[in-house]
Amino acid sequence: MIDHCVNGFRVAGIAAGIKPNGKRDLGLIFSDTPANAAGVFTRNQIQAAPVVLDRHRISSGVNQAVIVNSGIANCCTGERGMQDAVAMTRMTADHLGLNSDKVLVASTGVIGTQLPMEKIEIAIPRLVAEVRPDGFVDFAEAIMTTDTVPKLVTRRGALNGIPFTVTGTAKGAGMIHPHMATMLAFICTDVGATPGELQSILKTGVERSLNRITIDGDTSTNDTTLLLANGRSGAILRTEKDKDLFQETVHEVMEALARQLVKDGEGATKLVTITVKGAHSRQSAHIVADTVAKSALVKTALFGEDANWGRIVAAVGRAGVPIEPDQIKVHFDDVLVFANGGGVDEVSEERITNVLKQPEYTIAIDLGIGSSQMTVLTCDFSVDYVRINADYRT
Amino acid sequence: MIDHCVNGFRVAGIAAGIKPNGKRDLGLIFSDTPANAAGVFTRNQIQAAPVVLDRHRISSGVNQAVIVNSGIANCCTGERGMQDAVAMTRMTADHLGLNSDKVLVASTGVIGTQLPMEKIEIAIPRLVAEVRPDGFVDFAEAIMTTDTVPKLVTRRGALNGIPFTVTGTAKGAGMIHPHMATMLAFICTDVGATPGELQSILKTGVERSLNRITIDGDTSTNDTTLLLANGRSGAILRTEKDKDLFQETVHEVMEALARQLVKDGEGATKLVTITVKGAHSRQSAHIVADTVAKSALVKTALFGEDANWGRIVAAVGRAGVPIEPDQIKVHFDDVLVFANGGGVDEVSEERITNVLKQPEYTIAIDLGIGSSQMTVLTCDFSVDYVRINADYRT
Repeated sequence: MIDHCVNGFRVAGIAAGIKPNGKRDLGLIFSDTPANAAGVFTRNQIQAAPVVLDRHRISSGVNQAVIVNSGIANCCTGERGMQDAVAMTRMTADHLGLNSDKVLVASTGVIGTQLPMEKIEIAIPRLVAEVRPDGFVDFAEAIMTTDTVPKLVTRRGALNGIPFTVTGTAKGAGMIHPHMATMLAFICTDVGATPGELQSILKTGVERSLNRITIDGDTSTNDTTLLLANGRSGAILRTEKDKDLFQETVHEVMEALARQLVKDGEGATKLVTITVKGAHSRQSAHIVADTVAKSALVKTALFGEDANWGRIVAAVGRAGVPIEPDQIKVHFDDVLVFANGGGVDEVSEERITNVLKQPEYTIAIDLGIGSSQMTVLTCDFSVDYVRINADYRT
Repeated sequence: MIDHCVNGFRVAGIAAGIKPNGKRDLGLIFSDTPANAAGVFTRNQIQAAPVVLDRHRISSGVNQAVIVNSGIANCCTGERGMQDAVAMTRMTADHLGLNSDKVLVASTGVIGTQLPMEKIEIAIPRLVAEVRPDGFVDFAEAIMTTDTVPKLVTRRGALNGIPFTVTGTAKGAGMIHPHMATMLAFICTDVGATPGELQSILKTGVERSLNRITIDGDTSTNDTTLLLANGRSGAILRTEKDKDLFQETVHEVMEALARQLVKDGEGATKLVTITVKGAHSRQSAHIVADTVAKSALVKTALFGEDANWGRIVAAVGRAGVPIEPDQIKVHFDDVLVFANGGGVDEVSEERITNVLKQPEYTIAIDLGIGSSQMTVLTCDFSVDYVRINADYRT
């Protein structure tokens, strides 16, 4: 069993009765000492109450606890929603002996429903009583909605001989699409770093990981990514080299979480890496990769294990980026399927199908007109995706 | 039975063996005398051979026949694909006694497969022999792919006491999304009009009808809309009033076809009108309507008859257009479900569900910040959509 403990952090996840199915739905991350903090939030203009509150509170750069519920998003809940978000942090702070403004809050679940505050009020003392160093697994479960597995990643490193840990947890499954911090992700570390360093590391990390995945092209109202660093390992960032090493470790955790999110996308049976290279710019490579990754026709073909490269090429053609059709090459893993404006005749259907039958593979699109590239992760669009989302609320 | 005949047009649709299931797959529209013509084509940068050929040929403004096949798109088929498209028009022209450059061609179906030209060559004489005034129904069947019903609309009017007819037919079902002429649509009329008048009427008609529908957000490589006018009714456009009346009739036909296309979207069980009003501009209203209409989460909720207005509001919030969340109102038909930043408490779930259980209804989104509006048509995203598209090619 992997040890996900991080010095000075105690964590818990319990069932508070918010989810009708009785599963864990309330989680707490607590640092014994104040932690420097950074956050990246959704760019959706409709923002849940906890997002609005956290944006404000994160500006101090110092926090000590995060309370999270799943089942209800506390979004489009008006003034009462904001009062409830504040109350969740106040109750948590009271039981932890902190000031409210040192507590952050996040919610995920159905939009437009009010939180059952009486249940949360009863649950919080129990939650606080249960925090322990190895509680990350329970926490990861407590933030799940339509996720089928908890997402939890730990990486360890050393700065000047002093070992440190970075542990991240996230929830995803639906309403997931790039161009912002995606869903809920919480990263805890015992490294010592300033809020400014953390914000910079988190922001570039989001660009490289959570902003490069798509499940259904919908952007949530509640997306929140937090990075908390309490310095309790004694390892601190002295030099640029230290910063690079720490940043790399944090990014590894975020990339692993991003993969886990896509792999567990609602109804997903495939994890497909879409790489676009030979583009005029990284931006145009990203647009093309994103258009292919989001295409309902491409995603249903991935589900059907159907070597329908025509849909991929058609998506490239409508992406709105200048292309030269005859220069484009498309590979499924190492099998070239499209070149010189048409299908590659000598490739056997069987070789292609062998690639598509795998649970994970790469679709590489070479635009052949430049030197920039971009990679995004996507999943397939299955019958279960529709079933899950047709039934989600009711 | 509706009479779809148009003076001077003879039409046919037969089974040529292009589709493996033996259904009609080759169609012909023939005007006994030269017709003025206009066309609007896909903006996808990957364009099928027939699209490239038609763009060139339509520039003369005069055509007399259109040959169309379904089953294979003749796209990404290289030089041979272009030779085949030219050959289809040449064979048709030979048997009709025309010059090749007076014949247009369209194809729809799987991308990347070559046409079985030997079958088409054998079929064309039979197709030409079968053309008749009441052949539109057979033609409409012959251009279907995953469509479940043929799309055929006829409107009649009179110009200065002289009756005229406009008959349109189209195929849709998948790879359907606004911002270009959508799929194949052919409109025949016996009015006399110049190519310039026809182009103007067709272009504004596409903007008002085919560019306002979405089924899956994918834009085809083969989209083609043609308007042929042979003047055989004797009704001609003399005044601005005549032009307006004729334009209105053509647009009615196009709007009816657009509705039929969405209603028969792949796997669709609902036809939903998305109206956005109170916007700063028509463009921003269109962007918001389009974002809602395309959202996989909204579309699966429509399928599930789930009153999940949170997904609608979340889609509005990520559309990228400035909004004021508290000003937004959302109605399902006449039932207000969202206002003042939250759900409307006093509305019973039952009243909302009664709207959602209907096969057709309207979602009206009032942004409350301007006076512009835009309407688009969408359908739901069903389990069958995925099934159809996972299996389409193989």
